[in-house]
Amino acid sequence: MRLSRYFMPTLRENPSEAQIVSHRLMLRAGMIRQASAGIYSWLPLGLRVLKKIEQIVREEQDAAGAQELLMPTIQPADLWRESGRYDEYGKEMLRIVDRHNRDMLYGPTNEELITDIFRQSVKSYRDLPKLLYHIQWKFRDEVRPRFGVMRGREFYMKDSYSFDLDRDGARRSYNKMFVAYLRTFARLGLTAIPMEAETGPIGGNLSHEFLILAETGESEVYCHGDFLDYDPMANEVDYEGNLQPIVERWTQLYAATDHKHDPARFEREVPAARRVVARGIEVGHVFSFGSKYSKPMGAEVTGPKGETVAVEMGSYGIGVSRLVGAIIEASHDDKGIIWPSVVAPFQVGLINLGPGDAACRDACETLNRGLRAAGIDVLYDDTEERAGAKFATMDLIGLPWQLTVGPKGLAQGRVELKARRAGVREELAPEAALARLGVLRR
Amino acid sequence: MRLSRYFMPTLRENPSEAQIVSHRLMLRAGMIRQASAGIYSWLPLGLRVLKKIEQIVREEQDAAGAQELLMPTIQPADLWRESGRYDEYGKEMLRIVDRHNRDMLYGPTNEELITDIFRQSVKSYRDLPKLLYHIQWKFRDEVRPRFGVMRGREFYMKDSYSFDLDRDGARRSYNKMFVAYLRTFARLGLTAIPMEAETGPIGGNLSHEFLILAETGESEVYCHGDFLDYDPMANEVDYEGNLQPIVERWTQLYAATDHKHDPARFEREVPAARRVVARGIEVGHVFSFGSKYSKPMGAEVTGPKGETVAVEMGSYGIGVSRLVGAIIEASHDDKGIIWPSVVAPFQVGLINLGPGDAACRDACETLNRGLRAAGIDVLYDDTEERAGAKFATMDLIGLPWQLTVGPKGLAQGRVELKARRAGVREELAPEAALARLGVLRR
Repeated sequence: MRLSRYFMPTLRENPSEAQIVSHRLMLRAGMIRQASAGIYSWLPLGLRVLKKIEQIVREEQDAAGAQELLMPTIQPADLWRESGRYDEYGKEMLRIVDRHNRDMLYGPTNEELITDIFRQSVKSYRDLPKLLYHIQWKFRDEVRPRFGVMRGREFYMKDSYSFDLDRDGARRSYNKMFVAYLRTFARLGLTAIPMEAETGPIGGNLSHEFLILAETGESEVYCHGDFLDYDPMANEVDYEGNLQPIVERWTQLYAATDHKHDPARFEREVPAARRVVARGIEVGHVFSFGSKYSKPMGAEVTGPKGETVAVEMGSYGIGVSRLVGAIIEASHDDKGIIWPSVVAPFQVGLINLGPGDAACRDACETLNRGLRAAGIDVLYDDTEERAGAKFATMDLIGLPWQLTVGPKGLAQGRVELKARRAGVREELAPEAALARLGVLRR
Repeated sequence: MRLSRYFMPTLRENPSEAQIVSHRLMLRAGMIRQASAGIYSWLPLGLRVLKKIEQIVREEQDAAGAQELLMPTIQPADLWRESGRYDEYGKEMLRIVDRHNRDMLYGPTNEELITDIFRQSVKSYRDLPKLLYHIQWKFRDEVRPRFGVMRGREFYMKDSYSFDLDRDGARRSYNKMFVAYLRTFARLGLTAIPMEAETGPIGGNLSHEFLILAETGESEVYCHGDFLDYDPMANEVDYEGNLQPIVERWTQLYAATDHKHDPARFEREVPAARRVVARGIEVGHVFSFGSKYSKPMGAEVTGPKGETVAVEMGSYGIGVSRLVGAIIEASHDDKGIIWPSVVAPFQVGLINLGPGDAACRDACETLNRGLRAAGIDVLYDDTEERAGAKFATMDLIGLPWQLTVGPKGLAQGRVELKARRAGVREELAPEAALARLGVLRR
């Protein structure tokens, strides 16, 4: 993509409304624009990141055996009257009256709607277990939306729902999602720690939230240092096998956010040298809540002995749009964003310091073609901006690699390759730069 | 995917609420479930088709040089007050009041919001042209939603917006989308015919709608038979070149829907033997509307001579969710859906007629593995259903190929391969069946 044509309206100034670094950097990098309080448009650069995160979340759901469907954003109020949550939910629910005076709402979550789909379709224990998910926009009418996409009103969420015949089955489904979440966050380059959680308005008896560590995180986190050494991707997982040992390994050590923190227990259970006090951001939440919805809504199946059983359910959420902000909170410096390669909007920023110079142009075109032919996404700065501004923009938007072509270096057969994270620069021949970026010689 | 685990709740009976064939077949095949009048959940089988169509639409937009972004579903009413459409739009607009008593709405289209993004970001003619699109859920509160996803309230749409300095530029952008639409529908296996259209509530001076031919289409269509011979994919297109000759070729012949039909002109311009009277379904609409939004909303740039210019705009829509229904209307028989291969949810339905028979199971597992290793999506019917029900389900869901393994045939080294569209069956060796389905021998 040529920057001269790309719709990436960066800002030079720090926007005054942005209180946290991810919000500030997303606005400055031209990733998002506010449409209304807590509601954002995703500009091309931001959307590329959102879609990469979404795809990783999807792949890990699929790997765990969850099946994707898609529920609508607008739901009938009557379903929520069946579960009893319509009145309970309060002002965060965006309530709507349609032209025929029917009460509708913009779904803040989907337990009721998925339970309705399930009860219409599944009648026998033979069709269990079922693990279904969707990735869809949700709306929660926060009283004070802030922090950009970290606490927006309209937000993009992956939510899964499990249906099992009994508690053992429900536990197996819970474990699948628990492990899938560990792997999802690890693939995104994040250190995620599961912590026992309150069940809140979803209800239930078993719940964990997943927090990722970030210096600028919203809440204080206390945990055992061993968590930082675990690698959820170290081994292949058989989702049909027994996952309980993995879950136990990740839940037996101390980990708590400030509102659940027990200093005495922390000191008793964690050796002083292994006590980690850090800041974290919640990016996922898993719940097991038995028959809280299946009973009032009549989501029942016939069991093996012909008996009627209200199914055991769980729900499992990942904030996909929130993750864009969370990754920035966890990975930035004072110059801008530092994208993990797997979610970077482009892999390489190709900077032409001599757009008026034929040799520079030719060299850039050749590099651009070579990278693209190898399937590498390139943002090619072919503009007339001065060098300092070009470097600042590339640092701001945080692509993993910067490849700079200037007239002086080129005269000596050299281009410059910089790794954004390490900040290391290297002068080398254009062919060698391509090789370093993974382009195989033809 | 194993059918025994797949969430595909088919219906035996014809649902009484479905008046048209696509609605009936989508419900029966377990592709969708109604959440509320005109609002649907997309079950796994339906979502696979929706996503394939979305991806083809996206690829053709990208090829034409349009850039993808994503605007939110909920918009502030104030933007629509600026354009004057807030009061104009009537009851089809879903109006919402948030917890702070601000007037909001669920976007039925996005001219206002994209114009707002543009005016915040683009200030100079040097940054033109811009061609931006998004694929997002929309809501139109139809008084009588019906025909399933063909006329739903919550629907999935691709809408593009062009911004140009002058009319010539606007015409070039219009032509890009016009050609991209021809190619999009052709790739989807549809015969699409552009017809001059009213501009309606979008406004403007130049507009075409694209109708695809389908026996059960909603409106009568009169056109020259040459349209049926044109192939928009016959040649490569250079979107930076002059597209006017292509657009003229597609607009000079007679084509009209019943409400614009002029019988005298039809008979005068089209030789009797080339007169086509058929039924059609609108699947796309392109508009050029000058400064209708840019003027009142102040979307202005500085021109080459320093003058202030309100940009020339156009908008271009494809009904992505509607296309799922439209393709079925254009491609089905009395047994069910017949998917064009490019949008089929799976390419092959593998039918095991002897799930209790070890030889059948082994043969099916081998075929399933071989197909999947070649990247071919397989729905493997491993259930205990009787043969007749299995065949009926496969015909209903319309996968391009059915590969049947039964104990008798297998004893003679034979399986059966059926092409859904042609209905042709062939007995052949398992290895030969794999080869026919494009699996290369290792």
